Amino acid sequence: MKTSDALALINDTILSLKAYHLEPLDVAVKLNQNENPFDWPDTVKQEVAKFCLERPWNRYPPFIPDKLKNAIADYTGVSSQQIIIGNGSNEMLLVLFLALVKRNSRIILCKPTFTVYQMLLDGFGAQGVSINLDNNLQFNIPGIIDTIDKNPESILILCSPNNPTGSVLNEENLRLILKKHTGFCILDQAYIEFGGYNAISLIDEFPNLIITRTFSKALAGAGLRLGYMIGSAEIIREINKIKLPYNINFFSEHVASVLLNHQDLLDRRIREIISERDKMNRFFNTMPFCAVYPGNANFILVRTNKKDEFFNFLCSEGFLVRDVSGYPMLENCLRISIGTPQENSGLIKVVKRFFEKN
Amino acid sequence: MKTSDALALINDTILSLKAYHLEPLDVAVKLNQNENPFDWPDTVKQEVAKFCLERPWNRYPPFIPDKLKNAIADYTGVSSQQIIIGNGSNEMLLVLFLALVKRNSRIILCKPTFTVYQMLLDGFGAQGVSINLDNNLQFNIPGIIDTIDKNPESILILCSPNNPTGSVLNEENLRLILKKHTGFCILDQAYIEFGGYNAISLIDEFPNLIITRTFSKALAGAGLRLGYMIGSAEIIREINKIKLPYNINFFSEHVASVLLNHQDLLDRRIREIISERDKMNRFFNTMPFCAVYPGNANFILVRTNKKDEFFNFLCSEGFLVRDVSGYPMLENCLRISIGTPQENSGLIKVVKRFFEKN
Repeated sequence: MKTSDALALINDTILSLKAYHLEPLDVAVKLNQNENPFDWPDTVKQEVAKFCLERPWNRYPPFIPDKLKNAIADYTGVSSQQIIIGNGSNEMLLVLFLALVKRNSRIILCKPTFTVYQMLLDGFGAQGVSINLDNNLQFNIPGIIDTIDKNPESILILCSPNNPTGSVLNEENLRLILKKHTGFCILDQAYIEFGGYNAISLIDEFPNLIITRTFSKALAGAGLRLGYMIGSAEIIREINKIKLPYNINFFSEHVASVLLNHQDLLDRRIREIISERDKMNRFFNTMPFCAVYPGNANFILVRTNKKDEFFNFLCSEGFLVRDVSGYPMLENCLRISIGTPQENSGLIKVVKRFFEKN
Repeated sequence: MKTSDALALINDTILSLKAYHLEPLDVAVKLNQNENPFDWPDTVKQEVAKFCLERPWNRYPPFIPDKLKNAIADYTGVSSQQIIIGNGSNEMLLVLFLALVKRNSRIILCKPTFTVYQMLLDGFGAQGVSINLDNNLQFNIPGIIDTIDKNPESILILCSPNNPTGSVLNEENLRLILKKHTGFCILDQAYIEFGGYNAISLIDEFPNLIITRTFSKALAGAGLRLGYMIGSAEIIREINKIKLPYNINFFSEHVASVLLNHQDLLDRRIREIISERDKMNRFFNTMPFCAVYPGNANFILVRTNKKDEFFNFLCSEGFLVRDVSGYPMLENCLRISIGTPQENSGLIKVVKRFFEKN
């Protein structure tokens, strides 16, 4: 067989995907991936390292990662039967697509939003229906209601707080949407610890609601690649059938359950990040940006008509932020993660210098 | 929405899946999952633990796991552009299904074989075509040739050495099959380090050949959940588009690249497992089994009409083996992994005692 013949056998939906890529840039201060800027203290790491030395590496993890399931159940206030754990909320989204997307499925996205939804939608060859955020980059509730009315049994994907805008859905609006919606609603709450309405308590009332969450943001575990979904136990039992067996390695399972034992430290740091976000928001508002969107997550979105110069200047000064100007509605926008107090103070000086010169 | 309405929205193919489940049994000697029985020495673990303490946990892994890709490229003798890495070869199979399975795709399996193929096939709602192994549990080459002739552009999944029979495909037969086949061939070589023809050199000639391999067996890393696929660079580039970004956590990536640095130790242990397999095979052949299938992997399949009594006796004596009697053609069969020399000697005594009494 020729390579071209083999290529022609690959699904068209995959061939026409653009490869997702993030160019690695070697810059001292990473404010581009909305990570928690605080690493875990050595005492916690030592505790885990001890486990690694004792635990046989040649043995499979347990069939059900009970230790971590129970820890997440305690952390979120649900039963462990309501949880599936995966390698990042990315894997949870994929499992949900496998379980829920049918031929001709329509998937509703509120844009701009996290790009992996569109990648999966395209990969599955599903039909996308987009609703833009409003001019203030807030959710367009009448638009969502109208779209779900017109698309019965569609899959609605919402992200609250939304990446990269920080916009949130409050309880009233979520209830309004869920009462109308006749399909599944996937609600990505990767940033929920930083703000916005935590919708877990709606699951009992709305079994078509599935919430995804992650260890990569507030829980300071981006290196572990762990996410989870929460839904009604009967729904989760079915969806779990298409999750691959033994998907979680022993290290991530163990570390994550240890991290959740340090709730005080986590809370203190989350409060510090929120207070730093407020500080940075106040500062950005004194600078000549075209717009500052503070949001409810651990990042701030800014718009400037000197976008490229600003991005490159920050880079040259050792600060890497995310250029999101290619997203719909986000012309000239950059997303800036909240760093440590030291990093943020350093950024303030650099931003001031940029606007003194430009 | 009522729960029953939400359940009805889940794909029928998922609802009708039987949940994959492995009952945990607390037995001292695990000979049920074909793990390498030798854990890694403390010196290797210490080296990794040091890295864990230094590496920030709050930061994402690199976008491309280059360190591990390069190590696997060296290990397998291919270029790093020919490799995709995932959480176990399970994830690689899922990615291949996403890339290759179309509506109405036919998927050919040679049964009995690894159950995850059928789980994915059912989950994707693809049409399965089964060819049984022959009466000696060897691949039925004329049957395979005939079936691929009748099913053009089908996806052929082969496992060599095959789990749970240990059967292998030699170069001549693989060439015969690949020359005829007009679709993709997924060749699972999870056990290749223990025996059989390593088909990597066929990839240049047959771009429709994709090989999956794993760290869970010979490489003694089942706890890490790492697998990889190897194919032609042009094919891999396309398939990689539907692999989720950041699927590999920093720990597994690092450990795996360290393990591949200890090739001498690995080789020594693999030779020891093979020599133990030959010892166990000779022993089993002296016992009144109905049949012993030695195979080319790190397990032996035995058939006994006292299957349940034998299984339970082994359990009560602290040895857990795998009951595979529910697989097609494997009535009354048990699969017994090769343990350490001490474990195997212990097993020999217990098996002798069983047959003295029964």
